[in-house]
Amino acid sequence: MSARSATAAVFTAPRRVELQEFPLPETADDDGLLAVEAVGMCGSDWAQFEGRLGMAGAVFPVIPGHEIVGRIARAGSRALRSWNVAEGDLVVVEEVLRCGSCHGCAAAAGSCANLRVYGLTVPTTSAPGLWGGYAQYMYLHPNTAMHRVPNGVHAQQAALFVPLANGIRWAQHVARPRLGDVAVVQGPGQQGLGCVVALREAGVGLIIVTGTAGDATRLALARELGADVTIDVDSENPLERVRALTAGRLADLVIDVSAGATDPVGFAVDMVRPKGTVVLAGLKDGSAVSLVTDRIVLKQLTLQGVGGHDSASVAAALRLIASGRYPLEKLCTHTLPLTEAERALALVGRQATGEEAIHVTLIPSR
Amino acid sequence: MSARSATAAVFTAPRRVELQEFPLPETADDDGLLAVEAVGMCGSDWAQFEGRLGMAGAVFPVIPGHEIVGRIARAGSRALRSWNVAEGDLVVVEEVLRCGSCHGCAAAAGSCANLRVYGLTVPTTSAPGLWGGYAQYMYLHPNTAMHRVPNGVHAQQAALFVPLANGIRWAQHVARPRLGDVAVVQGPGQQGLGCVVALREAGVGLIIVTGTAGDATRLALARELGADVTIDVDSENPLERVRALTAGRLADLVIDVSAGATDPVGFAVDMVRPKGTVVLAGLKDGSAVSLVTDRIVLKQLTLQGVGGHDSASVAAALRLIASGRYPLEKLCTHTLPLTEAERALALVGRQATGEEAIHVTLIPSR
Amino acid sequence: MSARSATAAVFTAPRRVELQEFPLPETADDDGLLAVEAVGMCGSDWAQFEGRLGMAGAVFPVIPGHEIVGRIARAGSRALRSWNVAEGDLVVVEEVLRCGSCHGCAAAAGSCANLRVYGLTVPTTSAPGLWGGYAQYMYLHPNTAMHRVPNGVHAQQAALFVPLANGIRWAQHVARPRLGDVAVVQGPGQQGLGCVVALREAGVGLIIVTGTAGDATRLALARELGADVTIDVDSENPLERVRALTAGRLADLVIDVSAGATDPVGFAVDMVRPKGTVVLAGLKDGSAVSLVTDRIVLKQLTLQGVGGHDSASVAAALRLIASGRYPLEKLCTHTLPLTEAERALALVGRQATGEEAIHVTLIPSR
Amino acid sequence: MSARSATAAVFTAPRRVELQEFPLPETADDDGLLAVEAVGMCGSDWAQFEGRLGMAGAVFPVIPGHEIVGRIARAGSRALRSWNVAEGDLVVVEEVLRCGSCHGCAAAAGSCANLRVYGLTVPTTSAPGLWGGYAQYMYLHPNTAMHRVPNGVHAQQAALFVPLANGIRWAQHVARPRLGDVAVVQGPGQQGLGCVVALREAGVGLIIVTGTAGDATRLALARELGADVTIDVDSENPLERVRALTAGRLADLVIDVSAGATDPVGFAVDMVRPKGTVVLAGLKDGSAVSLVTDRIVLKQLTLQGVGGHDSASVAAALRLIASGRYPLEKLCTHTLPLTEAERALALVGRQATGEEAIHVTLIPSR
Repeated sequence: MSARSATAAVFTAPRRVELQEFPLPETADDDGLLAVEAVGMCGSDWAQFEGRLGMAGAVFPVIPGHEIVGRIARAGSRALRSWNVAEGDLVVVEEVLRCGSCHGCAAAAGSCANLRVYGLTVPTTSAPGLWGGYAQYMYLHPNTAMHRVPNGVHAQQAALFVPLANGIRWAQHVARPRLGDVAVVQGPGQQGLGCVVALREAGVGLIIVTGTAGDATRLALARELGADVTIDVDSENPLERVRALTAGRLADLVIDVSAGATDPVGFAVDMVRPKGTVVLAGLKDGSAVSLVTDRIVLKQLTLQGVGGHDSASVAAALRLIASGRYPLEKLCTHTLPLTEAERALALVGRQATGEEAIHVTLIPSR
Repeated sequence: MSARSATAAVFTAPRRVELQEFPLPETADDDGLLAVEAVGMCGSDWAQFEGRLGMAGAVFPVIPGHEIVGRIARAGSRALRSWNVAEGDLVVVEEVLRCGSCHGCAAAAGSCANLRVYGLTVPTTSAPGLWGGYAQYMYLHPNTAMHRVPNGVHAQQAALFVPLANGIRWAQHVARPRLGDVAVVQGPGQQGLGCVVALREAGVGLIIVTGTAGDATRLALARELGADVTIDVDSENPLERVRALTAGRLADLVIDVSAGATDPVGFAVDMVRPKGTVVLAGLKDGSAVSLVTDRIVLKQLTLQGVGGHDSASVAAALRLIASGRYPLEKLCTHTLPLTEAERALALVGRQATGEEAIHVTLIPSR
Repeated sequence: MSARSATAAVFTAPRRVELQEFPLPETADDDGLLAVEAVGMCGSDWAQFEGRLGMAGAVFPVIPGHEIVGRIARAGSRALRSWNVAEGDLVVVEEVLRCGSCHGCAAAAGSCANLRVYGLTVPTTSAPGLWGGYAQYMYLHPNTAMHRVPNGVHAQQAALFVPLANGIRWAQHVARPRLGDVAVVQGPGQQGLGCVVALREAGVGLIIVTGTAGDATRLALARELGADVTIDVDSENPLERVRALTAGRLADLVIDVSAGATDPVGFAVDMVRPKGTVVLAGLKDGSAVSLVTDRIVLKQLTLQGVGGHDSASVAAALRLIASGRYPLEKLCTHTLPLTEAERALALVGRQATGEEAIHVTLIPSR
Repeated sequence: MSARSATAAVFTAPRRVELQEFPLPETADDDGLLAVEAVGMCGSDWAQFEGRLGMAGAVFPVIPGHEIVGRIARAGSRALRSWNVAEGDLVVVEEVLRCGSCHGCAAAAGSCANLRVYGLTVPTTSAPGLWGGYAQYMYLHPNTAMHRVPNGVHAQQAALFVPLANGIRWAQHVARPRLGDVAVVQGPGQQGLGCVVALREAGVGLIIVTGTAGDATRLALARELGADVTIDVDSENPLERVRALTAGRLADLVIDVSAGATDPVGFAVDMVRPKGTVVLAGLKDGSAVSLVTDRIVLKQLTLQGVGGHDSASVAAALRLIASGRYPLEKLCTHTLPLTEAERALALVGRQATGEEAIHVTLIPSR
């Protein structure tokens, strides 16, 4: 590789993004450098741009981008062995970076006391700066977890791995539906659509997706991806419809992936059958939800909060993309160069009037 | 047996109870008659007395009493075989009566389309009338599930089987704590105390019980039964205390058994560690609870609604009573004859000023 | 209905079957009569014919037939309500008949102390005699569990519900594979093929089926139904092949449905990855299997014995048949009238040289 | 600390042990040195001494000792922070050492491609040599997982953490008994006794322990630690006894911890109730076990292979030791200096005629 520096889009402060140039770092026997080919975006990129993120707020200055696809540009021999890849391989990178030696890591307990996250928690002031995907090159720390992209899958397709892996983990690995179950997905964004594909793969019998009047395009795509029924909650009562569709038996499983709206939590509790499961994935900006918890008690429900993906669900997502069984390319509504990062952010933040984005991908090399 | 009739306390309408006399029914080969020796009471007796019960409201006229202990006064030979008891045996009766032939029963699915409940759903107008425990004798339908009381346990001790069985099912069978876990029980009523005993038996490392200023006696009893720490939420912040007691690691498990109060649901979500479990057992009179569900999502919590006991937990409760390992008699604060049913109801409904009741037992034979 | 009697094939003693005529019984408000349209057969029909069955041996004289499909010929109003069907409806009958009033039934514990099984345990000497499916009519006891056959599915298709329901329960409900898992099914008989369909529905990534040289037709059908790879263990080492197919990672799940052969148990333990699951469904005629249990310990495996279907898996099987997504009709290799019961038995017992049967159906009305 | 070198007992070849002197290594910011105070021994020390170990055979030359207790003699500031300890603290060391950067570690999947084990897999030829507990000092790699020993527990008591942690994991974390269950433990060695304590803590109702005529002392200790009944299988039929003790219902759970003997595997399958669980922990030197697997199928059993402890069970074991609720000191039958390592090995290998050892501890500082 002949490049000496990388252009990156940096969040320098809340709502401020600018292009900066970073020298490419030296790498040693156990680390490497990724030529970023595509970076997927989601609602949390927008939240990060606004300075809101998780419980603690966002870090600045930072190179964002945590849905990372690229080629191994250069890496030490020990790194290649440890990562089980070769230079030139197309890979997806798990954003989570564990320290490997704290108590949680030593115990393989899944919790790392010194956890870092590519694209989110490491500022550009921490050498070598290139800790996020909105850049032509990204630094690969020795402890990085990555997955080779199956043959025949190109970078932009692979960039869908995050919403699919989330859907697989939430709808199948965690919720564990049975063949023929009835499932409702609330919220037809990219993650909700990931859930639809996972439920279809898992042999669920009836998949119902709810959305709002503004979600018409997304709901149509949900049907293309395998949803049996979609409901526009602005024009009909979703609870009545689910009751009618199931002859009063209600849903075995409801997954709430809706962002911001608080009503769907109560709907979920009402739509699910006694002893059924509600998976909560959608964040509500910290809002209090008004909920009659007696229904949870009397119906003996399980409510399960879920976070993102893990290594097993990322692997399953890549196999699913490679299978070609679903028209996943239709999720990719927008592909933009790094120079248009701000417009891309407006799209995933649903700030771009008149334009409905589902999955937006930045292509740093353009 | 020489008796020809049985005196029963009948709820004739909301807030009206009167003694009535019922002729003892003939019994055949597959049914029988129980001489009621003790009937336990709980908050739901009071709710039933007021006409509020479950989602549908209470039935009138009805003989209440669903925590039933008595002796087999008479039964057919097929009934004795099926129930695996002899005449004269002291037994506890499960209140739930399944039809045995609907689809749910035929499939052993645990749900009965024609479910009846002793003491709750069968009016006195349905022959032979004696369908509840507030009576000298109770009819035993062929499908009744019962458990022989272990030798050496008398009726009044056995009458504690319901709060203990509930505690065992909620705190151990459902919540499945690990040895050494930290558990919080919110609400030191009879069921909360049942949870304390179950957690102590299950090897939980630190048991914390919360209550209000009015719960001083109950909290003291919680400590006697095995709670390591009790917290009066009116005088200290329970979340801060749990944080301090666990060096910031929070509780592995929180069980909310508090009735009526809505704050404890939010406390539970805050007190439990990431990936921990919250068991919801306490009813809030249908009130809406204000809850920041983002915490459930971000902490990846499991919330589990639970109902009453089942056959396995009743059996375990009887073994626990027979073990003599816990001063359970201290739960029995009041024992009253049938003629004082109204006072007993005031006690369990916490309407009797100046008197704190935990478990109240009616003795119909007095 | 005008018929007065029903012809039935009766097992009068081991290896003796004869046609007998039974008068049709009166039925009352809570029972009924089924006009049998098809009855599926499996290896256990042959075992029963030979007098071997379960741990206790077979009952004689008996009307066999426990995979029962028919129309409600007549039934009392209470029965129709309880079964949720109308006269004339096509239904499948669960063979298991619970008493509804023993301790296990009262407790909804799934175990019945007085369990009877249609076609297996009730002799013709027990009134009204018609307790099995090899007959034009079968008696329907009040406690019968049945499922309406979906519209558009005819009786012979529905007769596949047992191998499919078994496959669904063993391969999905019990084994709980994850999307993309690698599964091996040992034994391509009707139940093994049921597992293949269930695994395909459940989104398993790689389905491998093993059989012997004599199983060529069955293995070909396995591939048509969704198996990715089939292995003839008489011509290649299945363990080596599984290792090669998985790049050494081995299978996540192995289901042994092979009958009689003991080698596959050891193969299963060797083929499955550390911490993987082996489901044992195939009976070995009581033979001792030689097994290095250290491998179970060192690989930390789960071995799970499974029996037949339950109500949920039967319902899922009927939905799957109705979906039309699989060429299930190819399982139906033989359809014979009641008069050829003996030949049908030879086929399912693999005694008919030169002819390979998979699923054999008797049509009593012919 | 003033020492310059450490004496260690080294296995130089199968059945050859000799004392050797190792210079103490320099340590840096992220590693350290442990002053070994006690090292527990078990049957696998003997197997290692004979050259048999796991699937691959033992490594030579090696400093054995993987049940390690000691004080932090010296460590870098980063190490102390990461391990959450101070110099001088008494700790137990988990023997498993993960690399922290392979795919399994990066994914927190619990499997490490470069796993090393203190006392077992790292030869003395790998610098700094001191990789096992049979030594005055042991090297502490940055990735070491350790637990501070609770106040008031001395090193020799803490050396019991391994059999207790194994018992807690196998009998409680994995087997998940319910309050009042019936459990059988086969094999009253140190790990079987660890299971007894764990089962007692977990509220199991009836604990039965089986052993041979030679196990009289161990069985007596089992009773002291909480076993309700012990059975000498050389003088009575354990299956008959279990059947009698449970009125025919059999055990809910059987844990086989017996080493070498193959009969107990079949006993376990026979002693457990339908749908019960058998935990397999005892290794049989690679012997084939003759097993009627039809019983696993027909009884729908779960057989679960288990390995050693994990971080959660070690923590629980230390809390249990600190509780003082069990006379655990009685397990410590022999305490020997490093110079008597060979005699200690004979004891744990049951080669020392006339002397029955349970837990043997080496004290390297003597």
